[in-house]
Amino acid sequence: MEWFAKSLEKVREKRPLVQNITNFVVMNTTANALLAIGAAPVMAHAQNELEDMLKIADSLVINIGTLDDNWLNSMEKAVKLAKALGKNTVLDPVGAGATKLRTETSLKLIEYGDIAVLRGNFGEIAALLGEHGKTRGVDSAIYEEDKAKTLVLTAAKEFDTVVVITGPVDYVSDGKKSYAIYNGHEMLGRVTGTGCMVSALIGAFVAVEEPLKAAVSALVSFGIVAEKAYEEAKYPGSFHVKLYDWLYKIDVDLINKMGKVTEIGP
Amino acid sequence: MEWFAKSLEKVREKRPLVQNITNFVVMNTTANALLAIGAAPVMAHAQNELEDMLKIADSLVINIGTLDDNWLNSMEKAVKLAKALGKNTVLDPVGAGATKLRTETSLKLIEYGDIAVLRGNFGEIAALLGEHGKTRGVDSAIYEEDKAKTLVLTAAKEFDTVVVITGPVDYVSDGKKSYAIYNGHEMLGRVTGTGCMVSALIGAFVAVEEPLKAAVSALVSFGIVAEKAYEEAKYPGSFHVKLYDWLYKIDVDLINKMGKVTEIGP
Amino acid sequence: MEWFAKSLEKVREKRPLVQNITNFVVMNTTANALLAIGAAPVMAHAQNELEDMLKIADSLVINIGTLDDNWLNSMEKAVKLAKALGKNTVLDPVGAGATKLRTETSLKLIEYGDIAVLRGNFGEIAALLGEHGKTRGVDSAIYEEDKAKTLVLTAAKEFDTVVVITGPVDYVSDGKKSYAIYNGHEMLGRVTGTGCMVSALIGAFVAVEEPLKAAVSALVSFGIVAEKAYEEAKYPGSFHVKLYDWLYKIDVDLINKMGKVTEIGP
Repeated sequence: MEWFAKSLEKVREKRPLVQNITNFVVMNTTANALLAIGAAPVMAHAQNELEDMLKIADSLVINIGTLDDNWLNSMEKAVKLAKALGKNTVLDPVGAGATKLRTETSLKLIEYGDIAVLRGNFGEIAALLGEHGKTRGVDSAIYEEDKAKTLVLTAAKEFDTVVVITGPVDYVSDGKKSYAIYNGHEMLGRVTGTGCMVSALIGAFVAVEEPLKAAVSALVSFGIVAEKAYEEAKYPGSFHVKLYDWLYKIDVDLINKMGKVTEIGP
Repeated sequence: MEWFAKSLEKVREKRPLVQNITNFVVMNTTANALLAIGAAPVMAHAQNELEDMLKIADSLVINIGTLDDNWLNSMEKAVKLAKALGKNTVLDPVGAGATKLRTETSLKLIEYGDIAVLRGNFGEIAALLGEHGKTRGVDSAIYEEDKAKTLVLTAAKEFDTVVVITGPVDYVSDGKKSYAIYNGHEMLGRVTGTGCMVSALIGAFVAVEEPLKAAVSALVSFGIVAEKAYEEAKYPGSFHVKLYDWLYKIDVDLINKMGKVTEIGP
Repeated sequence: MEWFAKSLEKVREKRPLVQNITNFVVMNTTANALLAIGAAPVMAHAQNELEDMLKIADSLVINIGTLDDNWLNSMEKAVKLAKALGKNTVLDPVGAGATKLRTETSLKLIEYGDIAVLRGNFGEIAALLGEHGKTRGVDSAIYEEDKAKTLVLTAAKEFDTVVVITGPVDYVSDGKKSYAIYNGHEMLGRVTGTGCMVSALIGAFVAVEEPLKAAVSALVSFGIVAEKAYEEAKYPGSFHVKLYDWLYKIDVDLINKMGKVTEIGP
């Protein structure tokens, strides 16, 4: 069995409770993705219940889309609590680079917390490294395969964490090892929150696996899910529905058969 | 005709306006469920419009998922207004037992309002009776059929209202009469907000029927909807879509034929 | 080629970035509608990032459903910024007439901003002209075809903007020219946020076309999408899914063939 297939079994055995502070657009989407794959989502942002919730949670996912000052305070408190409680945190810096608020918020959360996995698109991760003007709203304005490969490594070293850059090819690095994942489908770009779904799923995997393995495993699983969904549905509404079906149906055999992961050096 | 089938016809005749203060995860889901069955949903939480909205609404649904202080204040005001205006209120204490905030908020709303129907899972209702540690995030950590039967009666007496505990078997009691509903499907556990959908639907039924009948009728209707949806779709994405289709298609004949309701004594 | 078909090609060429401050119920729905048709949605409401976001956005959509004071302040700031930056703004006065807050908020936003297109149902637009009691929650309590025709013209003159009244027939007027659009399907009334979807889509079209043309083009496109969706799916859950499929599939040929638009004088 491929090592990146094993993690899915662990998720389903443990059924981890994943605490999410995420954006309004994708709350339903990401909760359904977590349920479909076999994890247990909870969404809570009130400062006066974060400690109670994080004590019982297995991991934390922070997604800064639709942020404002009130939610930002909750996010700051949550990453600090997760650090203190030793729960792995995934950060999705939605729209970093598009506005100063989003770039600065992301950097603050990286500083205050102990981020296990940072997942963004090319423009967002570039912005966190000081290269602005590559994010268009919440999308990456550009994607250059060669640069993505370098960028993921630079970011992993800079932020001392596992970094994921999703795009036509997904890259993952912890600064020592890097991987390319070739699964996925471009129809994902026509459904809102599919990047956020990946971040949420990584949240389930970091509850059962060390961060580098967790990120790769989540990416390859979701990429295969997208390919299978597209086999059955060529248009975005139906494709979206099939994503949940395949998050439920995907299994170790399918991952062993379809997973396309390459170690690409440090 | 079974008495629990009659209520659906009343909902469709009246098309009640159901005012919801609910959580971000399920707003779309519950609005669509209400529209599909033939009711009219409205979602409003601003304190300075609650009175206007409740005056034209036929019932109120309060769901405490994703609560915070701001929303809590609106919920308190809304249950008081509904009481003063004589509109039936349904309370869904999402996550009670998982955090102190949620348990205390639920008890406060029960105290301030005049709750017609309180619907939760086993862990949530147990928490409101002082038995903690049985909620895992927003799910029930346990479900014991024998205990659920007792608990629903105890809660109905304690809170002097109709209480619903949903699970593999659903229990409803007003402290004098209790019912078990055997409809439903376990795939509901793989779609977020299906418990919230039931609470919202009860909100439509309490606008046309007294609370005990309303709760039983909503539960049996939604349980059948889930069974029919699963006949057509075995996976969570497609199953979710079919729930709305069947909320629209369900009729009195189907309820008469498929409804499994037993009176189980006080 | 019909002029109202041409606009869709322009949307797909430009892929406009549409900035939305909208309600919690439909955020996912409207983001998916914009993506499906080929635009790029972004949802942001924090006051301290509105300027950054509007500078890169091609248009603004304001939808007042689920408003509260905090969001209202953001909406006010956004319409002022869009005016200063010369970006076209679409306003959806959800629930105007149902509560004083919603009527007054809508009028304030019309006053502070430079609204390019105002889209509501009959009751909402009537309320903005001072005729109350015709909105039931977020639905129009009445729809009278003759009155709608007159009302749209009166509102266009009063607010000096393009006004859209959606209903069984859609009416559009800029005070000088008026159009009736006969596309659409009544099943749209069984899915939440379909009016909001239209407003969001108009947001994509006003980024590539002058407001009157943009509004007609968006309405005829969405109306045809609804007709095609209903051909394939007769129930609300499946119909909803097919809306996104057809927003993706619709093309100029289909609009030329199926579009039913009549100029009805001033």
